[in-house]
Amino acid sequence: MHRSRVHAVRIDTPEAEAAAGFWSAALGVSAEADPAEPRSTVLHHALPGLVTAVQCVDDAPRFHLDIETDDVDAETARLVLLGAAEVAREHGRRVLRTPGGHVVCIVPVRSDPEDFAAGANTWIDRA
Amino acid sequence: MHRSRVHAVRIDTPEAEAAAGFWSAALGVSAEADPAEPRSTVLHHALPGLVTAVQCVDDAPRFHLDIETDDVDAETARLVLLGAAEVAREHGRRVLRTPGGHVVCIVPVRSDPEDFAAGANTWIDRA
Repeated sequence: MHRSRVHAVRIDTPEAEAAAGFWSAALGVSAEADPAEPRSTVLHHALPGLVTAVQCVDDAPRFHLDIETDDVDAETARLVLLGAAEVAREHGRRVLRTPGGHVVCIVPVRSDPEDFAAGANTWIDRA
Repeated sequence: MHRSRVHAVRIDTPEAEAAAGFWSAALGVSAEADPAEPRSTVLHHALPGLVTAVQCVDDAPRFHLDIETDDVDAETARLVLLGAAEVAREHGRRVLRTPGGHVVCIVPVRSDPEDFAAGANTWIDRA
């Protein structure tokens, strides 16, 4: 058994400074460099109940979701069974390509444990 | 003066059926065709406080945000002043390309008026 939930919406772009300035003003929120994530700027309270951040990537602009979980291996296996494909492993996280062509990252729990427990789904792991 | 807020996260892809099936199972939520939006499948309660939907597009996979507003012209003008570029007008909505290269749609208010009033920012329009 393991648990997971959506933790963050990440706005990936090679033009991160321009994007962070735009989204901060567009949504009326403050922007601040994230000490825990290099190349990342947090947009405080931009979306309800989710971390929202602009992330500098050497790739085409995209949005991706971070799913946090208490078992990265089991959550990855669950999503692969649902049709996702693992495309990278880095710093304890997994990067998956989903059916439909989007990117999702599976990360260890980042939230306060009580918030995680309150919002997470529980999944029965297959043998 | 006008008001706006983020209303929806839309998961755009040409493979909408596969994507809707995946996200429904991945997030543990029900999926249902949206009677108000052709080619769109709503994922009920997938993200807190936001409409989340898979939308079939004849274009590369992407996520985009819908910003709802009580004045589409004024909200579009505000975001263009912040650096966005208008790329399309269709069915009363505007499609903008933001600094950083993402897509955002400006739509008339879709939410319950009380929810909109509670969550929206108020902006002073420039002359």
